[in-house]
Amino acid sequence: MAATILDVSRLCGYSKATVSRAFASPDQVTEKTRQKVYEAARALNYTPDAIARAMVRGRTDNIGFVIYEKQYPVVLNPFYSPIFESVLQTCARKGYSLFISSDRDLRLPNGQTCVKKQMDGIILAGQSDAQMVMDLRRQNMPVVVLNNALDVDDLTCVTTDQYGGALLAMRHLTERGHRKIGLIAGAFSPHVCTSRYNGYCDALREIGQTIDFRFVQTIEPTAEQAMQCASMMLSLPDRPTAIFCTNDTIAVGTMKAALRAGLCIPKELAIAGFDDSEISHLVEPELTTVRVDKATMGRLAAERLIAQIEGAPPQKQVIQTPVELVIRQTT
Amino acid sequence: MAATILDVSRLCGYSKATVSRAFASPDQVTEKTRQKVYEAARALNYTPDAIARAMVRGRTDNIGFVIYEKQYPVVLNPFYSPIFESVLQTCARKGYSLFISSDRDLRLPNGQTCVKKQMDGIILAGQSDAQMVMDLRRQNMPVVVLNNALDVDDLTCVTTDQYGGALLAMRHLTERGHRKIGLIAGAFSPHVCTSRYNGYCDALREIGQTIDFRFVQTIEPTAEQAMQCASMMLSLPDRPTAIFCTNDTIAVGTMKAALRAGLCIPKELAIAGFDDSEISHLVEPELTTVRVDKATMGRLAAERLIAQIEGAPPQKQVIQTPVELVIRQTT
Repeated sequence: MAATILDVSRLCGYSKATVSRAFASPDQVTEKTRQKVYEAARALNYTPDAIARAMVRGRTDNIGFVIYEKQYPVVLNPFYSPIFESVLQTCARKGYSLFISSDRDLRLPNGQTCVKKQMDGIILAGQSDAQMVMDLRRQNMPVVVLNNALDVDDLTCVTTDQYGGALLAMRHLTERGHRKIGLIAGAFSPHVCTSRYNGYCDALREIGQTIDFRFVQTIEPTAEQAMQCASMMLSLPDRPTAIFCTNDTIAVGTMKAALRAGLCIPKELAIAGFDDSEISHLVEPELTTVRVDKATMGRLAAERLIAQIEGAPPQKQVIQTPVELVIRQTT
Repeated sequence: MAATILDVSRLCGYSKATVSRAFASPDQVTEKTRQKVYEAARALNYTPDAIARAMVRGRTDNIGFVIYEKQYPVVLNPFYSPIFESVLQTCARKGYSLFISSDRDLRLPNGQTCVKKQMDGIILAGQSDAQMVMDLRRQNMPVVVLNNALDVDDLTCVTTDQYGGALLAMRHLTERGHRKIGLIAGAFSPHVCTSRYNGYCDALREIGQTIDFRFVQTIEPTAEQAMQCASMMLSLPDRPTAIFCTNDTIAVGTMKAALRAGLCIPKELAIAGFDDSEISHLVEPELTTVRVDKATMGRLAAERLIAQIEGAPPQKQVIQTPVELVIRQTT
């Protein structure tokens, strides 16, 4: 028969409430109390029953991190993994644990979105839609949207300055004298794609350049696809002298295509990426890219969600974290 | 007042047990039953109460993935993130969710290891010790150890052929004619370090070469540290003609140092890595490395743990997943 909190309380002489506090919030009891409680617990082989605690409080202290299926292996995604890590850290600091799943895991066979696991709120990352948010709210589930912007009442969305980042990278290329600039764009969510594409177009417009659609390609954002696409673009007789890639994985694939074609980077081909992923300073030459403040994105999303879980009224807001251009060796 | 399972049961006409099953194990009821249950649930805004379910079953269907603090941001660690993803997939297939934490999160102020969150078992990844395993077992917590080998009764450890992998890479270098081969080793756990170091030494012994300790360095496994270390090694007048790096991040740093020193890879310096991380085929030239079957490691650890949770007796066993050499362009 397992020991209960009452057994521990009897043995150490403190109340049940104090024993409970010694485990749940160790910093709220004195060092001496903690020691006595832990000693008694150790002697009895007692550990607090987390399930029972959750039942009593009606809260689980768990948060779900739900990512769009195509970006799914969040831990392998160079853009989302640092965001996820920041969410994880923020949650841990505030006493919450994190579940990962893809949006598909939340769908019932009838298409409804249903939360089967124990959690107090959800961060919806990547492609998401208003219906999903509404379904979750119907289950009294607070939601914050990450890296997307949805027009839903009382909904907080945390994203980054997608348009401004693209404009920064493109202006840098035009200031370096480039006129024929290619675009290799990843097939991301409409919010991300459209904003970055508009930045590309507006920068060309600023220098009176019309868009050459042979130089504009949309691909699945893998290094392999990027290599293939860049190889084709670079084999055109009047090939671009610079390529703007809408993420760093695409930029790395483009670099490989250029190096294999014997082109010198940046002298014969300039390349700019987006995200400032880990890879951007591991490749040689190191990649010029747009730095996205992933740590802040993750922290803000977690903080806003936890505030709602703890009673703050939800707010309609789109938060855009600022971007900056990191000039390295490929431009 | 929130709807209960009884309300749903009344409205759809099925028993409480059937309603419960329609949510917990949708594939165990017919399509028609599911539809009726979900319709009733939707009409009443009912969702199953996961906490109450866990309470009744005495199980949480949650598993902890605990990683050694220094390797902690598991989602940013190129070796552990694919393992973690495989654990996650295996758990999801079997109906379990996964928590991430570092070993520090589990330590009480008295040094004891304590599980505060709701979970049914734990995968201990990276550096871990027998005391930790014993502490967890005292809380009736099944444990499987990942990427380490501990001598503890009834303990299953899932690791890879660390020694054999190092030997493969080194023999490949000696077969290419190299005699002066450097070693840049990451400061990993004793299990990993010692095995890979022994592989290095034994391969040199096979060709009658004594170890030149100026060519053997241990560093924190970052690209920056590797670059620095490789630069120094390459500036020696009788520098090595090949370097074996005990992971791919170190190998990439070594590549950067070589390229910046104007050396042609592999003609003037051959480089071999370990792990076959994502980065190894993104860099140019692509990296020769030892492939570790991370998917199988993750799957086996999760399967063995879940079997124990579901009643299988624990077994003392060290499982070594096989390795293979992937020859690319750096050797």
